[in-house]
Amino acid sequence: MRDPVQTRKQILDTAFWEVYKNGFQGVSIDDIVAKTTVTKGAFFHYFPTKNDLGYAIVDEVLTQAMIERWVDPLAAYKNPLQGILTTLRKFIDDATEESMGLGCPLNNLIQEMSSVDPIFRQKLNAVLEAWIEGIEKYLKKAQKDGYLKKDANPRREAEFIVMVHEGAFGMTKSFRDKKVFGSFYESLKKYLYSVQNHK
Amino acid sequence: MRDPVQTRKQILDTAFWEVYKNGFQGVSIDDIVAKTTVTKGAFFHYFPTKNDLGYAIVDEVLTQAMIERWVDPLAAYKNPLQGILTTLRKFIDDATEESMGLGCPLNNLIQEMSSVDPIFRQKLNAVLEAWIEGIEKYLKKAQKDGYLKKDANPRREAEFIVMVHEGAFGMTKSFRDKKVFGSFYESLKKYLYSVQNHK
Repeated sequence: MRDPVQTRKQILDTAFWEVYKNGFQGVSIDDIVAKTTVTKGAFFHYFPTKNDLGYAIVDEVLTQAMIERWVDPLAAYKNPLQGILTTLRKFIDDATEESMGLGCPLNNLIQEMSSVDPIFRQKLNAVLEAWIEGIEKYLKKAQKDGYLKKDANPRREAEFIVMVHEGAFGMTKSFRDKKVFGSFYESLKKYLYSVQNHK
Repeated sequence: MRDPVQTRKQILDTAFWEVYKNGFQGVSIDDIVAKTTVTKGAFFHYFPTKNDLGYAIVDEVLTQAMIERWVDPLAAYKNPLQGILTTLRKFIDDATEESMGLGCPLNNLIQEMSSVDPIFRQKLNAVLEAWIEGIEKYLKKAQKDGYLKKDANPRREAEFIVMVHEGAFGMTKSFRDKKVFGSFYESLKKYLYSVQNHK
């Protein structure tokens, strides 16, 4: 594999999964190199330090993964509130005991790294912020189109929606019980119903 | 200090804070011994391994701390739903940037240890379960006394309430911004209003 863009991408994708499964501090550069086709020398050409790799995972893999999963699907719905629920429903239906046990890759890194390394924290905040702003953008649209009540605050609602997702992933990481996702879905539905215009 | 019960308690309280600030894997027995008045030999008499210490922190310190903070105060309210909000309001008013940055000691350990060690996971689940059951007990009382709607499910509501607390603590751990707690409070208030009987 001689294409540097592809090689970098292969390292990042492999590293993302290793970090997701083992934590950033629980994985070594040797572990990651062993799962790719690059040599350790080549690895250091792309990422001079383990932290450089960690930052690139957050900037280049995690941000995109979160937005693709939780924000982009909302474009398909006239009523974004319905889009939020349907996107969550699909996610829950696909969840396995293994995936529940892994938790959310963003939440994992926040809890592990945000108090350990200020640059990690800053980059993880940017992912959270992108997710919140993505939801906020759709909630503003929902308000403009008459789906969200006029007195709702799109920013605050977006913060709450992201917060309950992370809370649910954190709890199912430990319980590994789909019933918990059921409580999450039913309560979020009730909450969104309370901020929705019922024409 | 010769009283074994007191000595054990001193070690546990010290270790709880060291683990809260640095993570379980980020703290060594030497770090903890240095902050107490016991020798390393005496320490091992009480806790033969670091994991024994970790399990005792969860069983004997963390469980009680969570229940004292989030469940016991509800006894003072006729309407437990109001109790949940007032307890949260007091917590938010007292929060500092430092305390927000530390996160929730239960959430921290779940994210760090539940996929690393099955005994930790089992013990952390028991704390979560005690918190949920504590809230559930008060919601059942609220339903009986006519504060909570008849069609609400106390177990599911309790799971959701605990979940959003953990989600909020996880998010403020990274953002360290009281405005996020504000969104949490306002949204939880709106949610509880939606499940409350308005006589």
